[in-house]
Amino acid sequence: MHRDRFYTLAASCPDQVGIIAKVTGFIADLGGWILESSFHADDTAGRYFMRIEIKADSLPFLLSEFRARFAPLAEALQMDWKLSDSAVKKRVVLMVSKQEHCLYDLLARWQSKELDIEIPCVISNHDTFKALVEWHGIPFHHVPVTPETKAQAYAEVQRLVDEVHADTVVLARYMQILSPDLCAAYAGRILNIHHSFLPSFVGAKPYHQAYERGVKLIGATCHYVTAELDQGPIIEQDVIRIDHSDSPDDMVRYGKDIEKTVLARGLRYHLEDRVLTHGNKTIVFR
Amino acid sequence: MHRDRFYTLAASCPDQVGIIAKVTGFIADLGGWILESSFHADDTAGRYFMRIEIKADSLPFLLSEFRARFAPLAEALQMDWKLSDSAVKKRVVLMVSKQEHCLYDLLARWQSKELDIEIPCVISNHDTFKALVEWHGIPFHHVPVTPETKAQAYAEVQRLVDEVHADTVVLARYMQILSPDLCAAYAGRILNIHHSFLPSFVGAKPYHQAYERGVKLIGATCHYVTAELDQGPIIEQDVIRIDHSDSPDDMVRYGKDIEKTVLARGLRYHLEDRVLTHGNKTIVFR
Amino acid sequence: MHRDRFYTLAASCPDQVGIIAKVTGFIADLGGWILESSFHADDTAGRYFMRIEIKADSLPFLLSEFRARFAPLAEALQMDWKLSDSAVKKRVVLMVSKQEHCLYDLLARWQSKELDIEIPCVISNHDTFKALVEWHGIPFHHVPVTPETKAQAYAEVQRLVDEVHADTVVLARYMQILSPDLCAAYAGRILNIHHSFLPSFVGAKPYHQAYERGVKLIGATCHYVTAELDQGPIIEQDVIRIDHSDSPDDMVRYGKDIEKTVLARGLRYHLEDRVLTHGNKTIVFR
Amino acid sequence: MHRDRFYTLAASCPDQVGIIAKVTGFIADLGGWILESSFHADDTAGRYFMRIEIKADSLPFLLSEFRARFAPLAEALQMDWKLSDSAVKKRVVLMVSKQEHCLYDLLARWQSKELDIEIPCVISNHDTFKALVEWHGIPFHHVPVTPETKAQAYAEVQRLVDEVHADTVVLARYMQILSPDLCAAYAGRILNIHHSFLPSFVGAKPYHQAYERGVKLIGATCHYVTAELDQGPIIEQDVIRIDHSDSPDDMVRYGKDIEKTVLARGLRYHLEDRVLTHGNKTIVFR
Repeated sequence: MHRDRFYTLAASCPDQVGIIAKVTGFIADLGGWILESSFHADDTAGRYFMRIEIKADSLPFLLSEFRARFAPLAEALQMDWKLSDSAVKKRVVLMVSKQEHCLYDLLARWQSKELDIEIPCVISNHDTFKALVEWHGIPFHHVPVTPETKAQAYAEVQRLVDEVHADTVVLARYMQILSPDLCAAYAGRILNIHHSFLPSFVGAKPYHQAYERGVKLIGATCHYVTAELDQGPIIEQDVIRIDHSDSPDDMVRYGKDIEKTVLARGLRYHLEDRVLTHGNKTIVFR
Repeated sequence: MHRDRFYTLAASCPDQVGIIAKVTGFIADLGGWILESSFHADDTAGRYFMRIEIKADSLPFLLSEFRARFAPLAEALQMDWKLSDSAVKKRVVLMVSKQEHCLYDLLARWQSKELDIEIPCVISNHDTFKALVEWHGIPFHHVPVTPETKAQAYAEVQRLVDEVHADTVVLARYMQILSPDLCAAYAGRILNIHHSFLPSFVGAKPYHQAYERGVKLIGATCHYVTAELDQGPIIEQDVIRIDHSDSPDDMVRYGKDIEKTVLARGLRYHLEDRVLTHGNKTIVFR
Repeated sequence: MHRDRFYTLAASCPDQVGIIAKVTGFIADLGGWILESSFHADDTAGRYFMRIEIKADSLPFLLSEFRARFAPLAEALQMDWKLSDSAVKKRVVLMVSKQEHCLYDLLARWQSKELDIEIPCVISNHDTFKALVEWHGIPFHHVPVTPETKAQAYAEVQRLVDEVHADTVVLARYMQILSPDLCAAYAGRILNIHHSFLPSFVGAKPYHQAYERGVKLIGATCHYVTAELDQGPIIEQDVIRIDHSDSPDDMVRYGKDIEKTVLARGLRYHLEDRVLTHGNKTIVFR
Repeated sequence: MHRDRFYTLAASCPDQVGIIAKVTGFIADLGGWILESSFHADDTAGRYFMRIEIKADSLPFLLSEFRARFAPLAEALQMDWKLSDSAVKKRVVLMVSKQEHCLYDLLARWQSKELDIEIPCVISNHDTFKALVEWHGIPFHHVPVTPETKAQAYAEVQRLVDEVHADTVVLARYMQILSPDLCAAYAGRILNIHHSFLPSFVGAKPYHQAYERGVKLIGATCHYVTAELDQGPIIEQDVIRIDHSDSPDDMVRYGKDIEKTVLARGLRYHLEDRVLTHGNKTIVFR
């Protein structure tokens, strides 16, 4: 975590000799000071991944100029790439239902600027947290979802997300499935926290499934949302030990502690452009 | 965790043959249904520890009558003992300074009744969280502490705690030292969260100490407060992995996640009478 | 862990008022000194589980007499029960293939008497470890398994296990499936270590499956063997963190460290009669 | 972990703009294929650290030529640097006393080539493991240490280590203090495993110290040996959970599992030149 303003380049390209040299040479020629850099070669895929933080005031011009000058090299290397500026706050929409733990946790991190983001709004299928959210000065939208109103609800959610130009959507224990349209429109930008150690216990009531199977650890998984339920690329996971004396209700309680921590970690990685995806897998440059 | 009302006996006594038989025999003779029971013999100390949950409606009378009937046996066994009733909410005073993570975390658990307690007031040496606390409907007392006003501040804190008949005081990252009088008056009932893996890094700025020593894991410790700083009986601890790339500021950020979790776990153990102390050590019947 | 000789009662029975009182009262009446005791009520199943260690020389007679006297109470309570004597070493047959880590680990624990057992023989479908095992003074049986000789091999393995009156069989990365007959004959006495966090990645090459799915933690599971592959009651599990830079080969290497630790822990729980089963689940009194 | 032969550059130098570009540019100009690369800037120290793996057959000449050509750039950057060849096995002397766990563990990893090293000899102040070590085909030297013979023993150990041209010395629970001369001669090449989570519980009987303090986790620390006891740079640490029911003997037993794992991990990092030191701290490029 750096205090000074910096630009982040996150990129991947087909592997070949000299990629680091070309990219860092380009930066060095401009006098760019590299604060942090990470590289990874996926041998199987023949693909190269990188993330580089450059101190903003070490460059003689702004990000737009840097972007323009870098583009030809990126093209030559056949790169997928993006550049971001630490001074531009990401806009993150939270979606919640009735459970409090992830919401309170994210609000606390936002309140203390540990998460230095904008939360343009919170969307929920219940009004449980309306007063709390509004007390924090954040708009709250109650969009009920019933079997009959599903289509309108889907549309309304997407309208609200579009309207605030969200960079990222966080399902902070939002207990509804999103529309395939929304999943497609925000691919790689919607994060969910699933309350099991995926791929175990996909779907509903994972703690009850875990209780039935008699596992000795339970977990939580932060992943990107895709149209296929609980199958998206995994960003972060963790587990907690349980034993025979723990009921499904106890597991729900223990699980909340890892859910909120895993979601917050995954979200931070995502917001800092530390997560690159390749197929259904992630490279996470922590 | 049981849904039905129950009474909890937490006790210790000199070890001898037949303790469990006598105590559980007494309960069985009254028709008492034992929900959960834990026993521990400390061979070195020659002392026996136990915790027993009895279903309230399995007994033919109330807790006061049970207490009166049990007293002679307790005396015969030279017991230190206490009985509590799951239907009587514990009264827990929170003390905070400027850091938000433990406070938000405890409020979330209280809001959702995961922590089924009363919070009669929050006391702070700063007014940072006045509005948040009051929004939750909880009285907030701002008691500034300066070198000159220390004595009055000590007295005022103790008056506030006494006034609400607190069962327990939680220092949720309260950055002042309590008066010896308060420590003595509430011995075994004041919990602190220290931001290191004690006994490493006692005192101020433990994360900076950890950074200097180059450790690979940092921790947090929930312990009872005694007059000697950071030396009280340890209730719960946990750690998180760091590496060379983490600055003291990063450690502060990571540390918050274990601090709040460790404090919440330790507090739960304490409130459910799962923590028995012996000298400077704890028996924790999880 | 106690140094003095002791007897262990491990039992379960239908739940009712007064079970602990009756059992511990019986022991106390004989002057029996309880070293350690654990109890668990499974509310859903209405079943009660217990494990009690009694100091041998606190009883006025031997285990056989204790067993005879306890039988009527056990019958009255409709107990499944067993009694064991810490002075009688368990006889544990190890089965291995070509991987060394679990074998070396168990031999080291046996050599130092950390595992105070007899190993009457090691059985393997390869002769890789013949010299090492024999150097330790333990008979080694090479029983190759081919599609054509499967039936004879099954029979030979069972003969060898029967011949030494094994209490327990440990599949220490034995890469063959046991015959249904052997599974049935030694039900609840054959332990396997599976190299995944079950129920994820059942079957062959779990680390490759984990690599494909992109999980962030890999695990190992010690479980009782039943006729259905990787479906038996889970005794112990643990996980280790990996990341995108780890190949399946790296996972195999990391995994070995948790496999041997989880197997050793599970085996210790089993040998000390700390594991009670109920349906497909275990109660582990650690 | 790569199968192909590769060269590893591990280096540090004063921080400035363009270091990565210069170093990787040099490599790229020779056609060098980078398999893995890690970089770290220590802002406080103003120092830059790196580790780069280059595929051997991507270079048009051998390591000696590469070394000669790289030297001028290294000098210009004021680098501390070393180059190693994955095809040259490191020579690792093990030193042990009477405890078996780390020795068996390292022998198992050596036997299976997981640790692809040479063990030119094992040195011990006891002859407990003479037969086991020799059975593996490794010379064993028994060098007793008594208060009277300390000086000769020190000299003999150093002679034995020198004689085999050891790259690294591993104190695998060797319970004697090394001579200051040996510590100085092999600075940064002697690894110890200390059975506590340093800096807690320096010195003798750390598990007994941990028991007295009532901690809830115990740990192990792999560190470089310096003349000051237990104060050298920390390479790796880990912890395991204990509770009130665990005696110091139990802790010793649990502790063995983390000691051997932490030592093996630290040793691997060291042997793969993943550990760079700066003052009393380590940079570990895992």
